[in-house]
Amino acid sequence: MTRLFKNDYSELADERIIEAIKKHLNEQHKAYGLDEHSENAKGYIRKTFDVPNADIHFLAGGTQTNMVTISYFLKPYEAVIACDTGHINVHETGAVEASGHKIITCKNKDGKIKPEDIEHQMKLHTDEHVVKPKMVYISNSTESGTIYTKKELEDIRRICDTYSLYLFIDGARLGSALTSKACDYTKEFFGNIADIFYIGGTKNGLLIGEALVIKNKELSECFRYHIKNRGAMLAKGFLIGIEFEEAFKDGLYFELAKQSNETSEYIKEELKKANIVFDSDSPTNQQFIILPNEKADKVIKEFGCELWEKREKEKVIRIVTSFSTKKEDCDEIINFIKEL
Amino acid sequence: MTRLFKNDYSELADERIIEAIKKHLNEQHKAYGLDEHSENAKGYIRKTFDVPNADIHFLAGGTQTNMVTISYFLKPYEAVIACDTGHINVHETGAVEASGHKIITCKNKDGKIKPEDIEHQMKLHTDEHVVKPKMVYISNSTESGTIYTKKELEDIRRICDTYSLYLFIDGARLGSALTSKACDYTKEFFGNIADIFYIGGTKNGLLIGEALVIKNKELSECFRYHIKNRGAMLAKGFLIGIEFEEAFKDGLYFELAKQSNETSEYIKEELKKANIVFDSDSPTNQQFIILPNEKADKVIKEFGCELWEKREKEKVIRIVTSFSTKKEDCDEIINFIKEL
Amino acid sequence: MTRLFKNDYSELADERIIEAIKKHLNEQHKAYGLDEHSENAKGYIRKTFDVPNADIHFLAGGTQTNMVTISYFLKPYEAVIACDTGHINVHETGAVEASGHKIITCKNKDGKIKPEDIEHQMKLHTDEHVVKPKMVYISNSTESGTIYTKKELEDIRRICDTYSLYLFIDGARLGSALTSKACDYTKEFFGNIADIFYIGGTKNGLLIGEALVIKNKELSECFRYHIKNRGAMLAKGFLIGIEFEEAFKDGLYFELAKQSNETSEYIKEELKKANIVFDSDSPTNQQFIILPNEKADKVIKEFGCELWEKREKEKVIRIVTSFSTKKEDCDEIINFIKEL
Amino acid sequence: MTRLFKNDYSELADERIIEAIKKHLNEQHKAYGLDEHSENAKGYIRKTFDVPNADIHFLAGGTQTNMVTISYFLKPYEAVIACDTGHINVHETGAVEASGHKIITCKNKDGKIKPEDIEHQMKLHTDEHVVKPKMVYISNSTESGTIYTKKELEDIRRICDTYSLYLFIDGARLGSALTSKACDYTKEFFGNIADIFYIGGTKNGLLIGEALVIKNKELSECFRYHIKNRGAMLAKGFLIGIEFEEAFKDGLYFELAKQSNETSEYIKEELKKANIVFDSDSPTNQQFIILPNEKADKVIKEFGCELWEKREKEKVIRIVTSFSTKKEDCDEIINFIKEL
Repeated sequence: MTRLFKNDYSELADERIIEAIKKHLNEQHKAYGLDEHSENAKGYIRKTFDVPNADIHFLAGGTQTNMVTISYFLKPYEAVIACDTGHINVHETGAVEASGHKIITCKNKDGKIKPEDIEHQMKLHTDEHVVKPKMVYISNSTESGTIYTKKELEDIRRICDTYSLYLFIDGARLGSALTSKACDYTKEFFGNIADIFYIGGTKNGLLIGEALVIKNKELSECFRYHIKNRGAMLAKGFLIGIEFEEAFKDGLYFELAKQSNETSEYIKEELKKANIVFDSDSPTNQQFIILPNEKADKVIKEFGCELWEKREKEKVIRIVTSFSTKKEDCDEIINFIKEL
Repeated sequence: MTRLFKNDYSELADERIIEAIKKHLNEQHKAYGLDEHSENAKGYIRKTFDVPNADIHFLAGGTQTNMVTISYFLKPYEAVIACDTGHINVHETGAVEASGHKIITCKNKDGKIKPEDIEHQMKLHTDEHVVKPKMVYISNSTESGTIYTKKELEDIRRICDTYSLYLFIDGARLGSALTSKACDYTKEFFGNIADIFYIGGTKNGLLIGEALVIKNKELSECFRYHIKNRGAMLAKGFLIGIEFEEAFKDGLYFELAKQSNETSEYIKEELKKANIVFDSDSPTNQQFIILPNEKADKVIKEFGCELWEKREKEKVIRIVTSFSTKKEDCDEIINFIKEL
Repeated sequence: MTRLFKNDYSELADERIIEAIKKHLNEQHKAYGLDEHSENAKGYIRKTFDVPNADIHFLAGGTQTNMVTISYFLKPYEAVIACDTGHINVHETGAVEASGHKIITCKNKDGKIKPEDIEHQMKLHTDEHVVKPKMVYISNSTESGTIYTKKELEDIRRICDTYSLYLFIDGARLGSALTSKACDYTKEFFGNIADIFYIGGTKNGLLIGEALVIKNKELSECFRYHIKNRGAMLAKGFLIGIEFEEAFKDGLYFELAKQSNETSEYIKEELKKANIVFDSDSPTNQQFIILPNEKADKVIKEFGCELWEKREKEKVIRIVTSFSTKKEDCDEIINFIKEL
Repeated sequence: MTRLFKNDYSELADERIIEAIKKHLNEQHKAYGLDEHSENAKGYIRKTFDVPNADIHFLAGGTQTNMVTISYFLKPYEAVIACDTGHINVHETGAVEASGHKIITCKNKDGKIKPEDIEHQMKLHTDEHVVKPKMVYISNSTESGTIYTKKELEDIRRICDTYSLYLFIDGARLGSALTSKACDYTKEFFGNIADIFYIGGTKNGLLIGEALVIKNKELSECFRYHIKNRGAMLAKGFLIGIEFEEAFKDGLYFELAKQSNETSEYIKEELKKANIVFDSDSPTNQQFIILPNEKADKVIKEFGCELWEKREKEKVIRIVTSFSTKKEDCDEIINFIKEL
């Protein structure tokens, strides 16, 4: 069967992850995330991102992590600022609003929010007849496959400090961002720029799970209550603990991300040579190409690519690689497109 | 290390479950629960419980399943009736209330709700100054390890019909209930008594996951929207699909439950012979014994048993067996208690 | 003291309203809106708007009415479509989101939503990964003082019918809309175009209160439960009943609205003669004029006008008349602006 | 027509309240509760209750005040402790739960909560698998017409301090409590015992409105945002401001309460002489008498009394007096009962 390029969560997990699970099959663990493997995983993550004082929690999926986090940090009348293409705004079926909070949107530029737009919103929201913005949500890599530069992150951080806003970074594809050739900062820098960020496992070769990192323990004293209150506490938390232990103990997490980036880069280069037009300049594992309607439909049919945007005579389609994509899979889609 | 009897979710999963997962490691699946394995699993479940028209959804955990279900079926001013010991009332950190709904409680008898108490509540709740009860929640087996009899279920069903109440059965330990020697009904009977029930995987040897069965598709047209809205939709839904496919294709689910029941029964019989007093007469995988404080503490220390109730000079402690408990593990705790 | 033009809710009420209240001072009434005066008021409203089958409820304020209504009609995963300037989107401190629902916004044109934008949103929202739009919210008159034409309302109604959307009209300033010279439809037409609308009392000379009209009783069977559930049921509901009885028994409501429109029209005409530029062409009781910063500030200071928009060298300010504005009050502000 | 004894909110308001409103009919006021009359009223209240640092807000009704307050002070996973008969638990259609919070109930004694029961609940709620109690809710006078003694209030305060719980007192009938002959504390004592309390206007001769008193301004920095967020901010806040200004400027509030207490006391004494049995010993404006079914029904029919409890052959019915009850009204019901 043809290898699909539909998304990065079509397969169970990398083999090493499953083997780690098998290894611990006959152990008895403390439930609810209080086990040793979770502790080990947290230690590795704290070290990787240089956040020795961080509070870390494992959750099952991205929408859940966003919802649980945002509803913990915001009071009922507080809102989160995001760009219009932000995952919480467009692909979570109103989960944030269902938890009671407005999302204030700014027009994105290449999937990113601009500091001046955050500032503009702060100036519009100054009295009790409108919500009180209290958090900025960004994702890295973004929905468009782009990544924030060091300077962009610093500028957003500065605005957040000026207006006492939490900065929360959705890292559903953080691995891809941090191992991108375009990334101009270290993991340690990244780990200290946000107040809260999460490390996506689901989209990076894990069976299930995201690791939420709250930089400062003082911020999250009752976070475990909140996880349970939102139905998000897993009895077998050690499952995710074991996965992240394996993924972070010696860099597997980033190896897997690199694999997805490199195959993506390969596709990009080859298609560029073939004069295919790209909708954005993505240095990560998502590529967005523009094709005439008919050709686009053929690629969608053959490789399961998502239709990203309909234009008059063209379609933007998304090609996603993953931890398990191989060079020969890439050749298939490259050649198919070339020969259209 | 000593085998603990703390709960039935201390281990990852039965080996067959992990092997099933491994078998599908290199496949690409449709995301969000729309894959073939999930479809197969649903087919097996529909057949097992004789619910050909049922709508089935896989969710990650018990509290999540309760919250997502209750908040889907109730309107904002509607409430759920449960007994005081009901899991939703005492062990879910207010998840149901956080979703906006009052739990009306009735005093339990052996962990069960009585039909006359439901009726009494219906007579108390008749105008718009009080909530409108619209659902009855029970668990089977109960928090006390007991199970409902056929007659009890029929009586509750009748009351529910009289007052247009949904009947929702929490089956976190449904396997244990249905394979209990005390169970006087078939799976087919059980499958058709409630409007909604769930089949617990987490507490019965699966890695993760519960299967929610909604008897009648008409009731749940937009349930997938609601799952996503609550942050409960897994991208890799096929993970749980594969598990339930394996568990239901040829009866593994009930084999695992039987194992936990039989070892529990063995402990019960042996301790009875030794004149240990039980707090309830449980025919399932949880036993509640009463010991003088000091002795209780020793058992808790050695076997991790949960302290269930403090009395003046005694403690009630819970002994839980699981799919993986072996006869020799039982002998250890039996002998330890005998020799106290 | 100078008469302010800040808003239309700076004064208690028209004298006739207070006299009606006084008249019933020594009566005992049924509580919670079940009294005779409320019944009479409902009868008058049903007749005025030709909605014989309507269910009518009295609530205390506009934001409350919007929130209670929207959260009654939408399920948790459903959303309301509104234009970006809609009151629920910008001036209610996230009350709709706090009740759990996303507001999908469309760019306004003169404060109005366009049917094609509703349709566009329907085409974007088609699966369970995004909210399900189920209601269109508009206000008449709008936040910009404009009113919908008969054709515009019919076009929106048609889209709503096509996509099974409720149409909800916020009539905080409905009196002003329906008595405007620009209004090309009857009250009877208006009463039957929406599924739900409310008649604003607070901004039209009543002490307190809005009348929510639900065209079809079948839609609102448990609405009283929901009102109480949201903390919005007044023990002394008869207070609002008496007010609306007085306001609708012989047209006082529309008399008061006409007074505000006529004085607004007078200001508009006079200022136009003086070459003052208007930001919109409002046929109701709100006028938006553009003045150089310094002049704007003087008007704001003297007459309490709201600053509507800051531009580089100019400001848009709002002049609002009310049921109690007199021609001589208008002359004051007209002359003041002329002489700036 | 016969004077009813159904409740204390059947009439619009005391004449002085209406006259105060009339007096300010032609003034223009600042909206949203920021007017001078509200300021004056707050000053009088601060002085009356000796709470110079208190933050005070005016809201429309009791259920609304309870819901807005509780949802402001509690985080999502936090709960409020109340006695089973508490108004929030039984007569508010789940408004508190709809705002996301569990009510933990204790069995009442004469409508009151016992300090030891609060402590017991604190010992049951100690980890993240159950809600975190953070507030104690009591009402004074209670639903049974009783009032807390000084010692009882001090004991509850002590427990609240020990466990860092807010103490919130529902004063829907606070006037009646504080002017009761049985009250053994001053207004100044009362004002300083709770963290938050409200002064009921609706049930004490005001047209509408309750005054919420938050003892310490630091606690409520963003309370106005929350009021608006819950749909509870009145544009014409000055209406309630004027009422409370009038009610507190020279003691009218307590005069009205005294009138209801004295007439209640008169009924109590006369009926006791006639050997009528009382269900509780109420020193406030609600009396609960026990009558054989048939006689009870006659009183209910004639005087609109609420049926409080059905027993086998008897009924408990409630007789409520109000600010406007006169001695001759009392004689009517007294004689009627005597002659049954």
